[in-house]
Amino acid sequence: MLQQAPSLTRLVGELKKLPGIGERTALRLAFHLLKSPQNLGCLAEALLQVKENIRNCSTCFTLTEHDPCPICSGNRDLSVICVVETSQDLMALERSNSYHGCYHVLQGAISPLHGINPDDLRIRELLERVTGGNVEEVIVATNFTVEGETTALYLSRQLKTLGIRVTRLAHGIPLGSDIEFVDSATVQWAMKGRNEF
Amino acid sequence: MLQQAPSLTRLVGELKKLPGIGERTALRLAFHLLKSPQNLGCLAEALLQVKENIRNCSTCFTLTEHDPCPICSGNRDLSVICVVETSQDLMALERSNSYHGCYHVLQGAISPLHGINPDDLRIRELLERVTGGNVEEVIVATNFTVEGETTALYLSRQLKTLGIRVTRLAHGIPLGSDIEFVDSATVQWAMKGRNEF
Repeated sequence: MLQQAPSLTRLVGELKKLPGIGERTALRLAFHLLKSPQNLGCLAEALLQVKENIRNCSTCFTLTEHDPCPICSGNRDLSVICVVETSQDLMALERSNSYHGCYHVLQGAISPLHGINPDDLRIRELLERVTGGNVEEVIVATNFTVEGETTALYLSRQLKTLGIRVTRLAHGIPLGSDIEFVDSATVQWAMKGRNEF
Repeated sequence: MLQQAPSLTRLVGELKKLPGIGERTALRLAFHLLKSPQNLGCLAEALLQVKENIRNCSTCFTLTEHDPCPICSGNRDLSVICVVETSQDLMALERSNSYHGCYHVLQGAISPLHGINPDDLRIRELLERVTGGNVEEVIVATNFTVEGETTALYLSRQLKTLGIRVTRLAHGIPLGSDIEFVDSATVQWAMKGRNEF
């Protein structure tokens, strides 16, 4: 019986730890990998390489292969810092190609419910960066969730005492959407933030 | 930019090869793994261990850690062979706890459309097992798909010339299902195969 193969059981157990992957999917993935031992080896090697090479940038705390990361060491506007929760958020902003300053990755958001306090995030390091350098503006790009908004409020209070300009990403109606189906809170924000033609 | 981290790009590429996993899911999984380097290492190790240890049983061709596999070397009825397409099918039958004979894993099904001919499957080895041993019955448990049925028909013809009893898993109404919603072909089979109370 295959159930008796400990190495397969172990692989299924490891795959099950991944988000959105249950017992059945884990088994399906394991069998898929077993069908091509080459892919299996490649995946294992890729994992080890990532484990070996990826670390946090010591300036902005994003995940990177080189420290400082290509953004911090690149030709970017050092007077603006965009604060995000995760490296994924940073990537989304980079994809938009609308920002040419630096970043600061908090590595989470304040969430007393989950026991995450300001001290658990990279907020101290952000305040140090702001006081140390020639930073003129901090753009708070935490998520628009309860945790993200709490973090944004906390940061804005801390930063304003340092005399820094603090801004937040604009709320509004997403591109390509039908106003009829947009929630009314978003419509309210869009109305309040309306621009001259 | 994280997009510039080659090891991450490589990991995402490897994850994308898995069934049902696209670019976004692969990224999500990669970041999840990056959050806990320990899990990352464990997964890589589990993959390597599986690659190292899992092989095909030389008798029944199921995936196993030991050759012959625990079923072939166990205390099973050697006079009955149940033919399945894959090791997963074997596992499903074992889970049902309704069978105590041996298995033979074809490693696929005849599918001219995908270029899979009888020679690409473990049919020759099955016929050898049947002629060589004291096999009395072959239960054909290929899937009830076009490919599976084709394979079943092919096998039954080959095996009957050897004077072996060939049977097929019963069609019928699945347990716990409402007859109203069962497709009519299945109902027809269930009616034809009705049993005495």
